[in-house]
Amino acid sequence: MTEKKVNKKIPKMTIIRLARYLNCLSLLPRELYKEISSKELASKIGLKPTQVRQDFHHFGGFGQAGYRYKVDDLIKGMEEILGLDRSQNLIIVGVGHLGQALANYRKFEDLGLRLVGLFDTNPRLVGMAIRDVKVRDIDEIPDIVKSENVSIGVIATPTESAQITADLLVSSGIRGLWNFSPINILTPPDVIIQNEHLSVGLMTLSYKLKQIMSS
Amino acid sequence: MTEKKVNKKIPKMTIIRLARYLNCLSLLPRELYKEISSKELASKIGLKPTQVRQDFHHFGGFGQAGYRYKVDDLIKGMEEILGLDRSQNLIIVGVGHLGQALANYRKFEDLGLRLVGLFDTNPRLVGMAIRDVKVRDIDEIPDIVKSENVSIGVIATPTESAQITADLLVSSGIRGLWNFSPINILTPPDVIIQNEHLSVGLMTLSYKLKQIMSS
Repeated sequence: MTEKKVNKKIPKMTIIRLARYLNCLSLLPRELYKEISSKELASKIGLKPTQVRQDFHHFGGFGQAGYRYKVDDLIKGMEEILGLDRSQNLIIVGVGHLGQALANYRKFEDLGLRLVGLFDTNPRLVGMAIRDVKVRDIDEIPDIVKSENVSIGVIATPTESAQITADLLVSSGIRGLWNFSPINILTPPDVIIQNEHLSVGLMTLSYKLKQIMSS
Repeated sequence: MTEKKVNKKIPKMTIIRLARYLNCLSLLPRELYKEISSKELASKIGLKPTQVRQDFHHFGGFGQAGYRYKVDDLIKGMEEILGLDRSQNLIIVGVGHLGQALANYRKFEDLGLRLVGLFDTNPRLVGMAIRDVKVRDIDEIPDIVKSENVSIGVIATPTESAQITADLLVSSGIRGLWNFSPINILTPPDVIIQNEHLSVGLMTLSYKLKQIMSS
């Protein structure tokens, strides 16, 4: 796969599907799945095989019908496209239940992500440690972002603090925000925001339930 | 919008986009947005206006270009399609940090969802209450599912208990599972599972970050 192909603009929904393929592949028991067809992968995600092959065509290097892809090669190619082939540091702001659940999320490492800081305003939490990462006051965010070269900031604060947290992360130099608050956060155009709006998942579930209930 | 149109099979990615439209619309300050064009909505979600209009065509009742849609009508129509126009009861299994964060999620009510039960195996948690909902032992799941007519079960357990929890929920009569564990859970074909695989969001963020960093 050439650098040129990787850098060409890929539609947003294709990237989301690509992330799903990679997530699905990474969950397969490797001893049982050394190779996989687009048909098998499609059935595991609930998509059509033609969709999978069409998506694979975006990446040039793989995409033929009726072919059994080497799972390791697929994972490596997708990680490269998604920028997961390099290590990135992240911090979490907000160490309530959600922040603590995220701090304990074991898959960060698999994705090349290293948790290097936890931040809160609550003096009862500051000083605690979760998985050897100390909880610090949010005043220390700019220093840690700089010294640890942090690229991703996770917003796990209460809703009413989400925007001000985003502003602080951006002014500290972070370009990637992962937002768990149920609001649309405003950011400068050169900052990437990934919203984890839980209601979207719930709405999708509700739709599918309605379909089976009425069938 | 006729019942026939609502029941016809809509592609999976269209439903996800529809849920995003609805989520976005529900977050708009209503006093500023009584009406919205497909172009405005598209720009807020990062999609093309043609995509929005194409999706709207699936639902027959709305879809013309250059038209300003009444936000209330859009929300009502989308809620109907997504099955959010009726009340549904849900329970959460696993009352660790993630379960407690979800139990405190304020948007359930807006989506017509009522939290009617919390379950765990940990005797230190059983008997606690969160937002007036008592934490019960998982042995009580079948009874509560029946008496409260529960349609959605949230899996917020540790990874190693996720499949057995799903089995228990399904055998208790639940048809809709919302899975927060990072594994692919196996269910009978008449059960709907919505996976909230956080790594998919992180992968998408990583891709976009790579794009801006290299541009």
